[in-house]
Amino acid sequence: MSERDDQHAKDYKELSGAEGQRKIAELAKGIHICMMTTVSTDGELSSRPMAVQDEPFNGVMWFLTRSTSEKVDEIKQDQHVLLTFAEPSDSKYLSLKGRASVSQDRTKIKELWNPMYKAWFPNGEDDPLIAVLKVEVTEGDYWEASSSKLVMMTKYLAAAVTGGEVPVGESGHVLV
Amino acid sequence: MSERDDQHAKDYKELSGAEGQRKIAELAKGIHICMMTTVSTDGELSSRPMAVQDEPFNGVMWFLTRSTSEKVDEIKQDQHVLLTFAEPSDSKYLSLKGRASVSQDRTKIKELWNPMYKAWFPNGEDDPLIAVLKVEVTEGDYWEASSSKLVMMTKYLAAAVTGGEVPVGESGHVLV
Repeated sequence: MSERDDQHAKDYKELSGAEGQRKIAELAKGIHICMMTTVSTDGELSSRPMAVQDEPFNGVMWFLTRSTSEKVDEIKQDQHVLLTFAEPSDSKYLSLKGRASVSQDRTKIKELWNPMYKAWFPNGEDDPLIAVLKVEVTEGDYWEASSSKLVMMTKYLAAAVTGGEVPVGESGHVLV
Repeated sequence: MSERDDQHAKDYKELSGAEGQRKIAELAKGIHICMMTTVSTDGELSSRPMAVQDEPFNGVMWFLTRSTSEKVDEIKQDQHVLLTFAEPSDSKYLSLKGRASVSQDRTKIKELWNPMYKAWFPNGEDDPLIAVLKVEVTEGDYWEASSSKLVMMTKYLAAAVTGGEVPVGESGHVLV
């Protein structure tokens, strides 16, 4: 229940680099919708489901969205975003912190496009309202059920942010 | 994909009062873990899974947590919290905005206590480290799958915040 105390749990690890990315990829796999939280100018938080690209996690997450949506305005004001992934049937919960930026890079839109997006953009990939949302993930935490209790299992830190230094955990510390 | 555009969807509704609470209760039912997002002093967002009380939603959500946890410090600095509920198997996603406050009201702790909490507090309900986290929900949004597409179905506004006024939606507006 307490993140700070969970860091002393037996199975808690600090991961970074390729190993950290691999762990996040493994956890996010099969979760097709995450919740993206942004901050509005008045300090309010807001969150909405976003379709996740079916690609292994490599430190960056990409989304397609409508350029006129509230989250786009919010991200232009404050880049902080949080992505949360929940899979209750497996008792796994993942939270990724990052910085978001918005563009209308047509090449990237074409690369990310898949037929699922037709549900939101019936006019197809050339719809001028489509924007690309890039989230550079700086760190992440995840929790899994250990018997009857959800415990924080890993903290992932992107080396770019910490200069490669990560705090040493109770039961493991990996720097790739 | 865009909350603003979803508000013009055919099935979109604005709810408030008892009807809004009933809708949230119905959606949250069966989701035993939500993600609670808080804001730290440096503007970072953080999120962690929290056990939900098994009670119908009535505008306030209660949690037990450790008084020494980071979220408690964060809430003392900034009361904004966001609770997100995800049930991928039913394609339902719920996001509740609120204001959180922390206390160590022993009567409330005893009222909220159930044996599940022993996983986090093995010393039981008298553990002096247990704190109560009260979240007064001000508004909420939810999305459900409509054929192949997740659409925002309802916006709920607590009357206390808006003075009973809610914006009129495309397909319905209810004020109890």
